[in-house]
Amino acid sequence: MDVKAYGTPAADQPLAPLNISRRAVGAHDVQIEILYCGICHSDLHQARSEWAGTVYPCVPGHEIVGRVAAVGNHVTHHKEGDLVGVGCIVDSCQHCAECDDGLENYCDGMIGTYNAPTPDAPGHTLGGYSQQLVVHERYVLKITHPEDQLAAVAPLLCAGITTYSPLRHWGAGPGKKVGVVGIGGLGHMGIKLAHAMGAHVVAFTTSESKRNDAKALGADEVVVSRNPGEMADHAKSFDFILNTVAAPHDLDAFLTLLKRDGTMTLVGAPATPHPSPNVFNLIMKRRGLAGSMIGGIPETQEMLDFCAEHGITADIEMIRADQIETAYERMLKGDVKYRFVMDIATM
Amino acid sequence: MDVKAYGTPAADQPLAPLNISRRAVGAHDVQIEILYCGICHSDLHQARSEWAGTVYPCVPGHEIVGRVAAVGNHVTHHKEGDLVGVGCIVDSCQHCAECDDGLENYCDGMIGTYNAPTPDAPGHTLGGYSQQLVVHERYVLKITHPEDQLAAVAPLLCAGITTYSPLRHWGAGPGKKVGVVGIGGLGHMGIKLAHAMGAHVVAFTTSESKRNDAKALGADEVVVSRNPGEMADHAKSFDFILNTVAAPHDLDAFLTLLKRDGTMTLVGAPATPHPSPNVFNLIMKRRGLAGSMIGGIPETQEMLDFCAEHGITADIEMIRADQIETAYERMLKGDVKYRFVMDIATM
Repeated sequence: MDVKAYGTPAADQPLAPLNISRRAVGAHDVQIEILYCGICHSDLHQARSEWAGTVYPCVPGHEIVGRVAAVGNHVTHHKEGDLVGVGCIVDSCQHCAECDDGLENYCDGMIGTYNAPTPDAPGHTLGGYSQQLVVHERYVLKITHPEDQLAAVAPLLCAGITTYSPLRHWGAGPGKKVGVVGIGGLGHMGIKLAHAMGAHVVAFTTSESKRNDAKALGADEVVVSRNPGEMADHAKSFDFILNTVAAPHDLDAFLTLLKRDGTMTLVGAPATPHPSPNVFNLIMKRRGLAGSMIGGIPETQEMLDFCAEHGITADIEMIRADQIETAYERMLKGDVKYRFVMDIATM
Repeated sequence: MDVKAYGTPAADQPLAPLNISRRAVGAHDVQIEILYCGICHSDLHQARSEWAGTVYPCVPGHEIVGRVAAVGNHVTHHKEGDLVGVGCIVDSCQHCAECDDGLENYCDGMIGTYNAPTPDAPGHTLGGYSQQLVVHERYVLKITHPEDQLAAVAPLLCAGITTYSPLRHWGAGPGKKVGVVGIGGLGHMGIKLAHAMGAHVVAFTTSESKRNDAKALGADEVVVSRNPGEMADHAKSFDFILNTVAAPHDLDAFLTLLKRDGTMTLVGAPATPHPSPNVFNLIMKRRGLAGSMIGGIPETQEMLDFCAEHGITADIEMIRADQIETAYERMLKGDVKYRFVMDIATM
């Protein structure tokens, strides 16, 4: 099937209309008419080959929502007309310990939604800046939000699960003090989710201007991390800190805010290393520094259900497909509250 | 009470005989006739003021074993003639969350066995290179090893608990693959303890010559970490790695050996930072980098009982008090298998 898409033939070319093909619907496949696709920082890195190994043409997009257009003979969990989502994962080995545990995100054979090897043409996966997608049913999520919220659900498929998974894994909930560092696409979801989980949420920002925004998102307190006095008031008090900032920064400033046995988890990887953390800060209170990458398929469904139940969506700004390059430039400047979403109908 | 000790009046002076005084035995105090004291790397750092803030005169020593000489009126857990030990902690606030949890090692008011503030003369604590010690009973451990093993029990009070605590905390035991990096005073105890806990133990050393030694200590496998091929054979396979190396080194070489959700815990702090670890290695498998500092009093007792039950002591080389400077120089070169212990009777 031939479909329209937005992508780029080379790292130094802007994204533009492309025609791509999708495979025929196999027995376990779901064909999805894509309605909206969120715009993730990773899309930009991949399109511009700022990470190693982009293959072209590159069609980014892994915050995909749409409607089931067709299903294969053996598909049992989805039917034509259902509202569904696809995130960062479209395949995995399906037989390792990670897949068995529903943590396909940690499978060594995980196939990303774009730029990953596939037998389908052109030999690598093409993402959600496109009209149609064909995916194995295992990687298709049900959406139970009201249909008029669909565009704002799209970012949950990456920004939502990337923050939900570590918050759950490290026990965010009632009685826990949780920090969220950075108030962008990921951080704004982290604040909403941690708040809905019942934690006492403290948002950290470098920008005084985001103080009220963070409270509106659900933060109980906001700390401007450039103010040493404000930081010191929270020393040794956090059970968990979710750090969404990918730019290199001083990790010690946050590690020292953890109480004994607290953990700070990074969900962004900087292009150049953070300053090396001071080992004493880990040793003195048995603190941990960890990482987390998106989430597994069952917990992505759990996250979507949790968000539907709590009325949580992303705060979005809708764009037309032909505005993607402008959106990338604004995203680089942090000029978005808090996620762009492409209306695929404009393609 | 006036007692003989070994210590130094200044950072640039060798350790030599000193006379110090110990406080009168209070209602909750235990007076201990010290028989042996282990020699820890920290002793040397403190004596030479290689860490901030050594106060003089400095009497090091926090791997202390001896016999109870007297007890205060309210002491219930110890009696004259008992074999006992004292480790790195001689006091703490006794009312914080850490103390309540038996983790006095993480109490902000923890008083170290040397160089910490005390109302006793001369205003800071003086350690175990001395004939007598007076300590609150809470910080005195029972020793149930046979008396002829007493000297080799001394290093358990620091090197033993510093490795036992993280091994227990991170679940070393049957079915778990545990790495121990570095085969020195701490590492040799880590290997013995992890082996006795039932884990599959892999020792890491930079030195081909330690291969047989590590096996004799209880390692199931030994990896020379300078050999990339040997390291690659263990990629993504460890549940837990206990890293005892305080010298700056490449943490990523070990972090990549952890399986999903694995943790590497540092128990040594380098004088200059390790190269900054690659965040991708944490994110890709939800790995953690943590620290741990000695252990609490209840778990120190648990460790001593565990060691007595399993016939575990440190491998030691006995020295006279007047050999302490030579011992320090040999320790700096790694020329000891694996811990020096001072015979206090030679003082």
